[in-house]
Amino acid sequence: MEAIDILNDAIRTNGSMLCIGLDSQLNKMPGFLQAYSNGLLNFNCSIIEATQDIVSSYKLNFAFYEQYGAEGFEIMKKTFDYIPRDLLKIADCKRGDIGNTSYAYASACYDYFGADAVTVSPYMGHDSVKSFLDFPEKLVFILARTSNSGANDFQSLDCGGEPLYAKVVRKCLEWGSPNNIGFVAGATFPDELAKLRSIAPDNVFLIPGIGTQGGNLNAVMKANNHGTAIINVSRAIIYASESDDFAVVARGTAESYRKSINNALYGY
Amino acid sequence: MEAIDILNDAIRTNGSMLCIGLDSQLNKMPGFLQAYSNGLLNFNCSIIEATQDIVSSYKLNFAFYEQYGAEGFEIMKKTFDYIPRDLLKIADCKRGDIGNTSYAYASACYDYFGADAVTVSPYMGHDSVKSFLDFPEKLVFILARTSNSGANDFQSLDCGGEPLYAKVVRKCLEWGSPNNIGFVAGATFPDELAKLRSIAPDNVFLIPGIGTQGGNLNAVMKANNHGTAIINVSRAIIYASESDDFAVVARGTAESYRKSINNALYGY
Repeated sequence: MEAIDILNDAIRTNGSMLCIGLDSQLNKMPGFLQAYSNGLLNFNCSIIEATQDIVSSYKLNFAFYEQYGAEGFEIMKKTFDYIPRDLLKIADCKRGDIGNTSYAYASACYDYFGADAVTVSPYMGHDSVKSFLDFPEKLVFILARTSNSGANDFQSLDCGGEPLYAKVVRKCLEWGSPNNIGFVAGATFPDELAKLRSIAPDNVFLIPGIGTQGGNLNAVMKANNHGTAIINVSRAIIYASESDDFAVVARGTAESYRKSINNALYGY
Repeated sequence: MEAIDILNDAIRTNGSMLCIGLDSQLNKMPGFLQAYSNGLLNFNCSIIEATQDIVSSYKLNFAFYEQYGAEGFEIMKKTFDYIPRDLLKIADCKRGDIGNTSYAYASACYDYFGADAVTVSPYMGHDSVKSFLDFPEKLVFILARTSNSGANDFQSLDCGGEPLYAKVVRKCLEWGSPNNIGFVAGATFPDELAKLRSIAPDNVFLIPGIGTQGGNLNAVMKANNHGTAIINVSRAIIYASESDDFAVVARGTAESYRKSINNALYGY
């Protein structure tokens, strides 16, 4: 099944654009789980079990697992395997390298981890992204306007009348279709998000920056102008409680985000 | 010991700017090694044993190991451990993410793998690079002008009178010193390399693109203008022979590159 169909079905079935980012770290998990060797995996599986009917997708940011080395990779693999097949599995790894190397990265994400979608960096250009597009049933989110404080350093540089992030999106649209190319557009810059939506009305936007990073949902949903979007929240959901009720509290928090997204979607 | 000192000492002691890129893949190794479960590690260790007195550094591109999942991560860790302490260990992973996430990537490279240096992508700006610079004894190579065909797509966009890659380098110079910031400048674009060298005369350049990618050594060394540089060659050395003499042939090929680099260095 194509990634884009998995996503659209999940959004419809669960009435949810919410993505939970499993940015799981040992030292931030509830203390009682830290005592177990498989605590991190148990944490992830508990969050997935508690929330799978109210989200569209899960996103694993590779950094948090790579810091634990081979064991972290194993936990990441088992977590991907635990996500139900009818939800989108996003490998948030922001890779990008020359052609033959990018193919190996793509193989890691798709063949080894079984992800449906990835995030990639555009800096190295077409051949660095093409290897990911060579898996035509997958969805590739290209970094456009990210949510972080440093995003302004280069992404907003003026490149012949428009900012770099807009140039990136225009160029990348030539490389595929809305079925296999999406963009990362941070919630913390709604004006820029609106501009990107006008350039790429039909592509899926992966929107981080809601939650701990402080993006405003009403502004984001207005800027998104009813385009297909995935709203990611990570820390604000998975670390909502430090006690043994963490999964229940995560569900409650996720449900609250889902409602806020839907209210914002229909409320402006 | 600071990474920059390890590098300078290694260049002096071994009379070599050569870096061997261990882009090792099962299906490209000599057939007789493919039969062993630890074949990939043996391959790397044999290459390191055969060449450690004629190189300055080894570079492991994470992509080739990630495609084998947790096992690949384990092999990469053991390979890093096998590299002598007096040679620079480069984690070529081209990472880049928001601040707290980049810190986890940096921890993976430095704490888990024990690398001395990393490659990072500049697209997400200062906070994505800063986490790597928070390890002050390490060396961070920021992608500037890469060696691949797609490099032109964005890196050469005109940004207010000069190309993006030049803007990137100028900005990054504000973030650290030549002791902890270097740049990746591909051998396949010597004119651009010369321009970057004029902007950053004192920073180390990691120069890929010699070998299979076809960069010209004389042009590169002239463009580099006697700056500190690491000349990386991967496939052309490690796959120089498919037989059981692969390590001996790799050494011969590496020695030939070392001489060519030194001739080019003093010969123009």
